[in-house]
Amino acid sequence: MRIGIYGYGNLGRGVERAFAKNPDMTLTGVFTRRDPASVKTVTGAPVYPAERAAEKAGEIDVMILCGGSATDLPEMTPALARLFNTVDSFDTHARIPEHFARVDQAARETGHAALISGGWDPGLFSLARLYMNAALPDGKDYTFWGRGVSQGHSDAIRRVPGVKDARQYTVPVAAALEAVRAGEQPELTARQKHLRECYVVAEEGADRAAIEKAIREMPNYFADYDTTVTFVSEETLLRDHAALPHGGEVIRSGRTSDDNGHVMTFGLKLDSNPEFTGSVLLACARAVGRMRERGMTGCCTLFDVAPADLSMLSGEELRKRLL
Amino acid sequence: MRIGIYGYGNLGRGVERAFAKNPDMTLTGVFTRRDPASVKTVTGAPVYPAERAAEKAGEIDVMILCGGSATDLPEMTPALARLFNTVDSFDTHARIPEHFARVDQAARETGHAALISGGWDPGLFSLARLYMNAALPDGKDYTFWGRGVSQGHSDAIRRVPGVKDARQYTVPVAAALEAVRAGEQPELTARQKHLRECYVVAEEGADRAAIEKAIREMPNYFADYDTTVTFVSEETLLRDHAALPHGGEVIRSGRTSDDNGHVMTFGLKLDSNPEFTGSVLLACARAVGRMRERGMTGCCTLFDVAPADLSMLSGEELRKRLL
Repeated sequence: MRIGIYGYGNLGRGVERAFAKNPDMTLTGVFTRRDPASVKTVTGAPVYPAERAAEKAGEIDVMILCGGSATDLPEMTPALARLFNTVDSFDTHARIPEHFARVDQAARETGHAALISGGWDPGLFSLARLYMNAALPDGKDYTFWGRGVSQGHSDAIRRVPGVKDARQYTVPVAAALEAVRAGEQPELTARQKHLRECYVVAEEGADRAAIEKAIREMPNYFADYDTTVTFVSEETLLRDHAALPHGGEVIRSGRTSDDNGHVMTFGLKLDSNPEFTGSVLLACARAVGRMRERGMTGCCTLFDVAPADLSMLSGEELRKRLL
Repeated sequence: MRIGIYGYGNLGRGVERAFAKNPDMTLTGVFTRRDPASVKTVTGAPVYPAERAAEKAGEIDVMILCGGSATDLPEMTPALARLFNTVDSFDTHARIPEHFARVDQAARETGHAALISGGWDPGLFSLARLYMNAALPDGKDYTFWGRGVSQGHSDAIRRVPGVKDARQYTVPVAAALEAVRAGEQPELTARQKHLRECYVVAEEGADRAAIEKAIREMPNYFADYDTTVTFVSEETLLRDHAALPHGGEVIRSGRTSDDNGHVMTFGLKLDSNPEFTGSVLLACARAVGRMRERGMTGCCTLFDVAPADLSMLSGEELRKRLL
């Protein structure tokens, strides 16, 4: 199957690396809005200007869209789904229904198949929630994230005056995690579920107390959490906080009768969020290509994908080796 | 959707209890090979003789087969798949390909849909292995079971001369579990992965040393494991070991590049193996009924089921609430 990568940041590079582990998939090329001459790919894949993607439509079975959810994907996915079968990792939960409808229309009108919100959350975590709800309809879901780097929160800190660079870790509260794993069903506030650890490089002469206050009181991002702010040198940030680890755990506990309760958990511990997400998106692309070949058009999510379609093994091999 | 339960032991009762949590499903009745007059159902569902199941074909959308894998299901599922859409929990891993082929032929020839090997292992654990392999093709899988009661091993002990009753717990070795969770990829023997704890009621005057030796040296079941044998009174067995808890964990660790490794886990802690398995089978029946309505015939497994088909929520609700 021939794949294109549209957008070449951390996630695009993550998808590119995944081809080495998926021999049935080939990378046609990378599409970027920057000057292609300025972009060097990790594996030497060819680079094309984004605005000329349409010319490559005959050489690409599925295009993986690696833009951001805030401003890129709401426009990019519907536009590209008119030219290609597509996969994206749209992760603004509240706007998924609207995004789904727009992508569905574009894909249906042009006879393409599109999968939105691939990756791990939304994505594998969503699947865990669905399977757990189907297996245990009477229960309660919890999702914990981390310990891992939140790019959105790191960016928010960088916008504080006097901040040169920053890295924010989301950390689950151990006691809450243990209680939920043990089958208790506590009501937990945002503060009771996660801590926020911030590592900040201040500009020379900046007012550190003011920076710390601005971070701790920032609405939505930090005000509702116990937040620690640690000032570090630029060298320390680059040396100790360059990686992008992440992970988390989905937990559902519930009952099948008055007598019997059950706890289900799905957890990830990831050294590199973009590499793992890229690997999942490539599996999603395999499924979308196969579903389109069988006649599917329009938008879908992982909820609509038969698991076997994600795998490079045949149905027979899957039943023999993994069932 | 109208459901029948064929076979009424622990598992059949587990399925029956699940209807209370799945208001979109109705139980038409229970079919038993015993005298129906001697069977009292948990919820008061009607009981019919198994040999007259065919007469109820018009009132049942999916029949859930609750026989055992050793001798019941290999005959039962192909026979019943000629009369009904069916779900079973066939769990003899080595014989799945053969069972699949026989059920597939029966269902295809008569225009029915059948799902085999539903439940949690095979079933939800198989799904975890598939998703993990698709997301992380370069890695290693581990499955740990327990702490939980193995009915097969308990039965094996009961066949030892001088044994009146017994209960066997499969227990994962904590150190092995921790190493695998930490992303190490050890090679583990059967003995290094699981312990076997046996609680045995001896007949009066039986040779306990001989019983213990017979258990510990039993090939396949115990010889390859560290096994403890504890003699208890019948009262103690009934009081402390009457429940059927189980569970376990599927773990895959692997790499997306030389630099980055990842660990994925899926775990279950179940107070009642038959109730949880029954709940999963009812969700499988929902999916089979829907797939048949869309024209599917033949045999499938959970690998072929779009996750959304297992849920009582609509696609729109699922995207809004669980994605």
